[in-house]
Amino acid sequence: MNLDKLQQWLQASNNDLAYISNPTTISYFTGYSMDPHERIFSLIVFKDKDPFIFVPALNVEEAKNSKWDGDVYGYLDSENPWQIIAENICKRSNEYQKWAIEKNNLSVAHYQNLHNEFPDSNFSSDVSPFIQKIRLYKTPAEIKELKAAGAEADFAFQIAFNAIKTGVTERNIAGQIDYQLKLQKGVMHESFETIVQAGANAANPHLGPTMNQVKPNELILFDLGTMHNGYASDSSRTVAYGQLNDKQKEIYEVVRKAQQKAVDAARPGMTAEELDSVARNIIKKAGYGKYFIHRLGHGIGKEAHEFPSIVQGNHLILQEGMCFSIEPGIYIPGFAGVRIEDCGVVTKDGFEPFTHTDKKLRTLPLKD
Amino acid sequence: MNLDKLQQWLQASNNDLAYISNPTTISYFTGYSMDPHERIFSLIVFKDKDPFIFVPALNVEEAKNSKWDGDVYGYLDSENPWQIIAENICKRSNEYQKWAIEKNNLSVAHYQNLHNEFPDSNFSSDVSPFIQKIRLYKTPAEIKELKAAGAEADFAFQIAFNAIKTGVTERNIAGQIDYQLKLQKGVMHESFETIVQAGANAANPHLGPTMNQVKPNELILFDLGTMHNGYASDSSRTVAYGQLNDKQKEIYEVVRKAQQKAVDAARPGMTAEELDSVARNIIKKAGYGKYFIHRLGHGIGKEAHEFPSIVQGNHLILQEGMCFSIEPGIYIPGFAGVRIEDCGVVTKDGFEPFTHTDKKLRTLPLKD
Repeated sequence: MNLDKLQQWLQASNNDLAYISNPTTISYFTGYSMDPHERIFSLIVFKDKDPFIFVPALNVEEAKNSKWDGDVYGYLDSENPWQIIAENICKRSNEYQKWAIEKNNLSVAHYQNLHNEFPDSNFSSDVSPFIQKIRLYKTPAEIKELKAAGAEADFAFQIAFNAIKTGVTERNIAGQIDYQLKLQKGVMHESFETIVQAGANAANPHLGPTMNQVKPNELILFDLGTMHNGYASDSSRTVAYGQLNDKQKEIYEVVRKAQQKAVDAARPGMTAEELDSVARNIIKKAGYGKYFIHRLGHGIGKEAHEFPSIVQGNHLILQEGMCFSIEPGIYIPGFAGVRIEDCGVVTKDGFEPFTHTDKKLRTLPLKD
Repeated sequence: MNLDKLQQWLQASNNDLAYISNPTTISYFTGYSMDPHERIFSLIVFKDKDPFIFVPALNVEEAKNSKWDGDVYGYLDSENPWQIIAENICKRSNEYQKWAIEKNNLSVAHYQNLHNEFPDSNFSSDVSPFIQKIRLYKTPAEIKELKAAGAEADFAFQIAFNAIKTGVTERNIAGQIDYQLKLQKGVMHESFETIVQAGANAANPHLGPTMNQVKPNELILFDLGTMHNGYASDSSRTVAYGQLNDKQKEIYEVVRKAQQKAVDAARPGMTAEELDSVARNIIKKAGYGKYFIHRLGHGIGKEAHEFPSIVQGNHLILQEGMCFSIEPGIYIPGFAGVRIEDCGVVTKDGFEPFTHTDKKLRTLPLKD
């Protein structure tokens, strides 16, 4: 169990307890997911005692009825949460001095609140790198969820392609995708806001969806994903609506080639940087290097973006069980954007994508 | 302009520059909104030089084309963002020593990255309280947006009530609400995940929407909101589907009375705690005090939850222009939940709600 690993890490790293504040990390360790908004939600893990979850009073019932079977403590809005956390820690032991915190999540204010309750304790230890590392390798059970999420993304593309017609807005198409995912697949959350970008809008990779209307003879880019039992999908496809000109066709084919070559090349033993270079060199050689303005990919798991980062400068060696996206793109301001993206898992001798929607240029007929 | 106020605060508080890291705060000061996910997005404001925005390379074009007309600097995924931020700060001046940071947002890791670039600087100043304070008072232009967002919430309730029938899932109803908001009102974002809770599910205030199916003769709770030009709405209604028993009716009427009395009582000069007590005392007197497990309300503006908090222990005096929710609830585990919520603004002599959907018990006829 993952929580055992964390306890072992505490002992090995000579820490007394860990204060876990990232809701995704808490979900990873406990199976209980919740968005606390501005309230306090944490998991406190001890080297030698039972852990507990700390939640706002209005989540206590829900937490107790969740997969988590350990202690749950709550606080009312009118109470000081830090004091109650401190009291419950001291009930376990008064001897704890060395804390590990999630430095990449905990705010400076919350850190100071904790420190005020335990002024003599040492908070210099960062548990984030350990958590990132254990989350790098997905278990077969996790990979099963990631594949199921990928199948939902493939379904969403079918809804997307069917929704395209002249005059429909990007936002309307995004709405149809989200609604049909809820209705037909019971998808509760997208893993990020569904992106639909027509024509030149696709040159801004994270824009929209806007009230821009689909016009004939342009490229339309979709980037979407779902959450399935706490695991994310994330996939992009770009399609032609009507007839493309030569330059539109060219950038599509360059991206398609770069993406496919990288999918074919990915395997254990190469570095993240080397994989990035496979796609980047193809795009550079075609003369579009300066329009590929992001890394090749990002890890995926309980979050749509996690480690590893498939980027220049990252010498991490890819290994079996690592899951990430392969998503080259070309973005030409004022003209068009193309991105093709599959997430997948590094296998014994290759890479298995979680999404399977065809990547050959799809040309949709004009509809009014 | 708000940015001028921040510059004046820097001068008055003897700080050289502010590092703003909360995307909502950046949007408040610049008009440019963006979700950076795990990448770096910040606004750097100087006491005596022009501010700049720092974004990932893939957002540079979008930021330059936004309402923000100052400098925009970007970084590639393969670059060290902290180094580039530091270089651009040093281009303004090498003399800056005193930083103000947003302690309630900046992570310990990002703080340490900044500190590493400027090891001799002082980062002890917290700009969060100042920002919370200026955001407490909404301008007429902001109130106009909040009212428009409220009207969208009222529209959403009509969709919600029409969608109720025996056997439909909470998630399906939530999907219909979100889709019709996108389709008919062009709403791009809900201000939080649309909540639909039937029967006993409503006893967990933040649960769902689940695959639970609507059954005859239960209370159904909706809590929903939209974003309108960067401003949030947030409103709750609870309705009867079929015939209620006496206890269901009683808790509805207690909450309704508590909510209406608080709306009628809210005015400048009383404290946040006093307003909370108006509703809380009614619920206590009716014998349901222990089932009202949260504060009476929260501020609203660019976020669905901001300051002020309407809660016991908060002696803040309410003043004209403050905007917040009034949302008492009764949650009886295993039985039912009722919450009624309007957000509104403190006026010269009272409180003007942003939502107007009728609060008299609404009984929907059974439908198959």
